[in-house]
Amino acid sequence: MGSREGTADIGLIGLAVMGENLVLNMESKGFVVAVYNRTVSKVDDFIQGRGAGKRIIGVKSLDALAAALKRPRKVMLMVKAGQAVDETIEQLLPVLEPGDIIIDGGNSNYQDTMRRTSYVESKGLLYIGSGVSGGEEGALNGPSLMPGGSPAAWPLIKPIFQAIAAKVEGGIPCCDWVGENGAGHFVKMVHNGIEYGDMQLISETYWLMKHYVGMSHEEMADVFDEWNRTELDSYLIEITRDILRYKDSDGSPLVEKILDAAGQKGTGKWTGMTALDFGVPLTLIVEAVFARSLSSQKEERSRAAALFTKPSLPREPLTGDAGKSFIQDLKQALYASKIVSYAQGYLLMREAAKAYGWKLNYGGIALMWRGGCIIRSAFLGKIKEAFDRNPELENLLQDPFFSSVVDKAQASWRRVAMTALQYGLPVPALTSALTYFDGYRSETLPANLLQAQRDYFGAHTYERTDRPRGEFFHTNWTGRGGSTSASTYTV
Amino acid sequence: MGSREGTADIGLIGLAVMGENLVLNMESKGFVVAVYNRTVSKVDDFIQGRGAGKRIIGVKSLDALAAALKRPRKVMLMVKAGQAVDETIEQLLPVLEPGDIIIDGGNSNYQDTMRRTSYVESKGLLYIGSGVSGGEEGALNGPSLMPGGSPAAWPLIKPIFQAIAAKVEGGIPCCDWVGENGAGHFVKMVHNGIEYGDMQLISETYWLMKHYVGMSHEEMADVFDEWNRTELDSYLIEITRDILRYKDSDGSPLVEKILDAAGQKGTGKWTGMTALDFGVPLTLIVEAVFARSLSSQKEERSRAAALFTKPSLPREPLTGDAGKSFIQDLKQALYASKIVSYAQGYLLMREAAKAYGWKLNYGGIALMWRGGCIIRSAFLGKIKEAFDRNPELENLLQDPFFSSVVDKAQASWRRVAMTALQYGLPVPALTSALTYFDGYRSETLPANLLQAQRDYFGAHTYERTDRPRGEFFHTNWTGRGGSTSASTYTV
Repeated sequence: MGSREGTADIGLIGLAVMGENLVLNMESKGFVVAVYNRTVSKVDDFIQGRGAGKRIIGVKSLDALAAALKRPRKVMLMVKAGQAVDETIEQLLPVLEPGDIIIDGGNSNYQDTMRRTSYVESKGLLYIGSGVSGGEEGALNGPSLMPGGSPAAWPLIKPIFQAIAAKVEGGIPCCDWVGENGAGHFVKMVHNGIEYGDMQLISETYWLMKHYVGMSHEEMADVFDEWNRTELDSYLIEITRDILRYKDSDGSPLVEKILDAAGQKGTGKWTGMTALDFGVPLTLIVEAVFARSLSSQKEERSRAAALFTKPSLPREPLTGDAGKSFIQDLKQALYASKIVSYAQGYLLMREAAKAYGWKLNYGGIALMWRGGCIIRSAFLGKIKEAFDRNPELENLLQDPFFSSVVDKAQASWRRVAMTALQYGLPVPALTSALTYFDGYRSETLPANLLQAQRDYFGAHTYERTDRPRGEFFHTNWTGRGGSTSASTYTV
Repeated sequence: MGSREGTADIGLIGLAVMGENLVLNMESKGFVVAVYNRTVSKVDDFIQGRGAGKRIIGVKSLDALAAALKRPRKVMLMVKAGQAVDETIEQLLPVLEPGDIIIDGGNSNYQDTMRRTSYVESKGLLYIGSGVSGGEEGALNGPSLMPGGSPAAWPLIKPIFQAIAAKVEGGIPCCDWVGENGAGHFVKMVHNGIEYGDMQLISETYWLMKHYVGMSHEEMADVFDEWNRTELDSYLIEITRDILRYKDSDGSPLVEKILDAAGQKGTGKWTGMTALDFGVPLTLIVEAVFARSLSSQKEERSRAAALFTKPSLPREPLTGDAGKSFIQDLKQALYASKIVSYAQGYLLMREAAKAYGWKLNYGGIALMWRGGCIIRSAFLGKIKEAFDRNPELENLLQDPFFSSVVDKAQASWRRVAMTALQYGLPVPALTSALTYFDGYRSETLPANLLQAQRDYFGAHTYERTDRPRGEFFHTNWTGRGGSTSASTYTV
């Protein structure tokens, strides 16, 4: 270490595509970047290749990396989530000094980030776990960045992070402080869960267009293109249009030749597991995750298909006004379902914030997602406005704008869901959004019977509608039963 | 310790109602039971109360408990799941000897049981983690028991466990060996998840009878009574009938005064989290867990109800043939949904068995659940028969009996789901079962578009329908993109 100070503004470890692209992005904004990779030949390859002639300093050891950096040092890890992050932290600690900052830009589990923040802080250093979304292209041209961790680190990394982030609405960066310890990675996890939901909803919409309306790929692409110039304007709608237009070498739509077995990488399932753990009904995202699991059982589905009668689809394409009207319904159903999905995602963030003591800025999060990332959309601007109107908003569905949109969409949404169920076209995300909505807007639900059952077989007790909350009753339903069944009691 | 041997067949720690009832059950089958409780006054209370005049030995210390037992000693814990189990194990180890058996009969997490089995075995003792279902009454008169853990312990506890278990079909005990380490508690967890699903499905059925058909409580009770004499014969249907008939002191149905805010105790959410982790689409149970969460947000739902137009329900009750016909549809929908739920639960057990190397006897599990427990039903006999026909059955929905039932139920099931969505009556479990079924029996799903999207923004690659599985392709969809986009490659 010693007193010699380097000239680099930030160091980056891990020169896979995402890492390289972030380095090039930082350099293009005027920052000097020192780069290191465990397989050190990668450093030379990069410095002589995509990094040639730029303010990028290649180093071959972590000592050299530390020496190359201005103080307090900022070292960003773009290594594989999991053990590699812990190992790199261990290797960095001896070469860094109190006040230096370690930044993890991978898709780490937020609980790991909570643990690492405490650990690194216990060594006198600062820690940042930041969500980075936007894929390779985002990393190069402007990602969405969701940093959390040690609050004292934020002012020090803010100039770099906000410079490289995507910009929306005349220069607002898609990057702001999220919150303490694991908050950044938590918000990134929810982002990814929402991404699963958005993709599933679009896929279901495509499926109904194709099999119920009987549209060609060009016609479907035209509809998505049109939708992309409305309130549905979003990156995923845009690329769906491009995908539907893309022709294979034989001139036919390439998408038709892609195997319908979807992969997943973990953040969707983490979102669902966290929601179950917190008791937040994240129905749409979980259905989207499960839809991927089911899709991947391709061979089993083929076997099952032979065992059941397939509902007959309309023989002819739905043309003219009937077709146009159904496409309008589809658009409403997609929009309303999407609102439910985001409402559920925001509820999960709210519960986590309560549990972990994070002060999340919900409007700010919408703005971080507004550009740069996979779920970027005009819609997120509306969410920002909803939280501007009411920072304490309990549920997006209670915002006047969104409640009005969903209320107007109701009839269309129901028609689409009913059509899908009638014809056996599986739209699990769209229908689970609707059943959630119907549950949410129902003052009474059949959980009274459920509570009676629980009390019947397990003496779990119940509350009464004609008594204050917090007073619990047990009924001896059978006239038999043990000593706990004698009378009314408060627990 | 020393060489003196006691006279008790088994010891039991934890004299809450479940523990007491198990002791009385064991004693009634001729076993001598030694009992201990941390708050030792509970021991005297029991010996002088419900345990008076019986072959029950009260002890005031764990040393005395060990001394009271025949060798190898069998000590069953009926203490609160979690830390109390670990603490009791620690206290027991010094007073027990190699070859003795510790049995945990609580609702422990199966992963804890895996850990504890290894730990106790490392001390030279044997360990059993057993699911116990049936509530207080089951514990007293015959529970369903699902023991797993150290295989060497099974022959030693089998006479006691099978004697106290519920019996079905002329004396077959609802208890058999499940598998190594955590298998017993895993199967109990899935049982509880299925219980969540069954209860939610019955609640949804009740809701449609009440709000769409417009039935009185007596009429609904009559229908459940009738159903209980058919293929739907089950404990939960039976108690639903009793609950619907039960009158409050003012003569009105008590169930109407029970608050519709359902509680939960963890095993349902564990089932869902495990399913997400294993990638097994357990859609119905997760919807059932989330339905409880949503129900518990009673005040928020009241606020939300005011914001949205409520679809108009029929003005008059659905009487005559129309009513009868819909009730027939409801029965089919309930039965088909239930089959889906059990199919999903069995898939989860199959995946866990693969992952943990358990040799689960699926037909045997159906038999363990056939009596004694909360989900006991005639239906489980049919599941047993399905696994007798084909022990390697991939999915219950592929069994000829169940596939035929579900196929015949399809039209009714769709009508019920469509009706519920049209009228805004939330039936999340019933519809998610149907959308799962439609996905499962669909040879193709829209996941091709989803894979295209993943490849577009993340270069995740895809497989092709016209190429063998395991060959992966990437397309440079935009004509831009990095170096990984150049060509077709196999990973």
